[in-house]
Amino acid sequence: MIRALPRIAGLVAAATGLALTVSTARALPPGQAATAAAAVPTPAQIVAAAPASDWQAIAPDDLLVMDLAPGASGPRRVVIQLIGPQFARAWVENIRELARAHWWDGTSVNRVQDNYVAQWGDPNGDDKAKAKPVPPGLAVVNERAYTVAQTTAPDFVNPAPDAYAAHTGIAGGFGVAFDGRRIWPVHCYGSVGVARNLSPDTGTGAELYAVIGHAPRPLDRNIAVVGRVIEGIENLSSLPRGPAPLGVYSDLAMRVPIRSIRLASDMPGADRLRFEMLKAGSASFARYARLRANRHDAFFIQPAGGADICNLPVPVRRVPGRR
Amino acid sequence: MIRALPRIAGLVAAATGLALTVSTARALPPGQAATAAAAVPTPAQIVAAAPASDWQAIAPDDLLVMDLAPGASGPRRVVIQLIGPQFARAWVENIRELARAHWWDGTSVNRVQDNYVAQWGDPNGDDKAKAKPVPPGLAVVNERAYTVAQTTAPDFVNPAPDAYAAHTGIAGGFGVAFDGRRIWPVHCYGSVGVARNLSPDTGTGAELYAVIGHAPRPLDRNIAVVGRVIEGIENLSSLPRGPAPLGVYSDLAMRVPIRSIRLASDMPGADRLRFEMLKAGSASFARYARLRANRHDAFFIQPAGGADICNLPVPVRRVPGRR
Repeated sequence: MIRALPRIAGLVAAATGLALTVSTARALPPGQAATAAAAVPTPAQIVAAAPASDWQAIAPDDLLVMDLAPGASGPRRVVIQLIGPQFARAWVENIRELARAHWWDGTSVNRVQDNYVAQWGDPNGDDKAKAKPVPPGLAVVNERAYTVAQTTAPDFVNPAPDAYAAHTGIAGGFGVAFDGRRIWPVHCYGSVGVARNLSPDTGTGAELYAVIGHAPRPLDRNIAVVGRVIEGIENLSSLPRGPAPLGVYSDLAMRVPIRSIRLASDMPGADRLRFEMLKAGSASFARYARLRANRHDAFFIQPAGGADICNLPVPVRRVPGRR
Repeated sequence: MIRALPRIAGLVAAATGLALTVSTARALPPGQAATAAAAVPTPAQIVAAAPASDWQAIAPDDLLVMDLAPGASGPRRVVIQLIGPQFARAWVENIRELARAHWWDGTSVNRVQDNYVAQWGDPNGDDKAKAKPVPPGLAVVNERAYTVAQTTAPDFVNPAPDAYAAHTGIAGGFGVAFDGRRIWPVHCYGSVGVARNLSPDTGTGAELYAVIGHAPRPLDRNIAVVGRVIEGIENLSSLPRGPAPLGVYSDLAMRVPIRSIRLASDMPGADRLRFEMLKAGSASFARYARLRANRHDAFFIQPAGGADICNLPVPVRRVPGRR
């Protein structure tokens, strides 16, 4: 049975994102809420109104599509945007090679730790006798690749101070930190990284994780960010937390089978997904970021005056297929 | 079937929290990892070694115990520490009164939005004909109570800069921001707040939410933080996300029934839960915070040099009962 929420809840919801079914709330006249919302746009309204020229396509070779075994409520797909070649190039090439080899098919999500990560790959990777061999020729990458020389300026510089770095901003669609000499991607909600062992040259990209909690920024420059989830993160973040330390699924029945991981560029045309992201150098992005840092829509009494880089995700939208 | 993880994984896990079953990882000699971990302690080791005098009891009147209907894997309990009387006093008094009246029993979790909040209370609160009346005499509180005059110094001052405020720190066990004139609690993962409608005097405390994503700091000073989840947040954060906008459970079958919400002080003695928190003014907390900002244990190559206030949660531990 589906119950439509009363109209006021919908309006308030659109304006605030945080008020619903408050039993003691006065029902404000819908007109009042609508007028207030129209007077000062929300960040979402800015994004919706951005001209076509402020959007850019995400290359199908930069889209990794993970299909988990269906859950109680249907298919579970997670779409990941791979980071551009200015960062983590060798790992991303490994990931493309693993996807083309269908290497992840039949592996699983093996660990979900609350307020931290969901992690997937070969569940027998620790066991030399049972570990699934990776394709020969995968690059071995180490910590020198975690940051790169800052040869180009970011597309957007965040004016707010940061607890972890001299500066933050956006480059190639990803949150970054920089110090005028080096630049590196940061760990935010939805970031995808390369799990590794103690030694920094032990992660190939075959074992990946996605952040499902508060930004674990201490991992920046210690582990490689190779992508970000742009659709379907809830299929990872709402999985049961593992009962063992670090959220490991010590109960093997909890493992979530991975049916396939493919590059969108390798998928049949009809299934191919097309996404665009808002250009971080555009006027629309600048306005979106300013409004994210200073909410003036009806709900907000006191604008913050700033936003940390993980509260400024680059907006993404689906593009209808050509079929 | 339970499989014990190989010893190396356990060691790496303890040291890093982010490396497991990497199929291509070299198996480091356990001795090497153990030595490295012993040389520089982890924040968790500092907390475990803190003397009894660095801990303080959390009053049973400050513990709110929410029992959801059992899930597939058993009971689902969420324990919330209510914020101290220096903040949000009127809302917390309302919450105690609602708990003593067993007001929430039979209500439900009605909304779970990814990377944002899980929200509970009267599912019919919007419908005047069906809304559950709140006890008479609940205080009506408005935005003047969202911040208070900074009459006392925080217990701990975070040296790292913040995107949202002049300063951050800890007061009464909670993350706070301050500017030398006013002080206010901040929204972090696990924070519990008072949902309201557009008008700031519409939240009594009967409708509450818990943060289950990246810190939504723009809500600071716009909505009242009244507590933080100290145990069982996974019982909220792993719930299915609602299909309607804002994560509302428009499919009523998704609603998660609340069996009861009680103050620990009102629970029978044998069931009473006892918790302690690390004093934020203690030497142990200072060392814990310094190590959280500068990880030196074996996994980390590059310490961050700082931590945002939401990455410095005040540690809590259970105290065995007297039975």
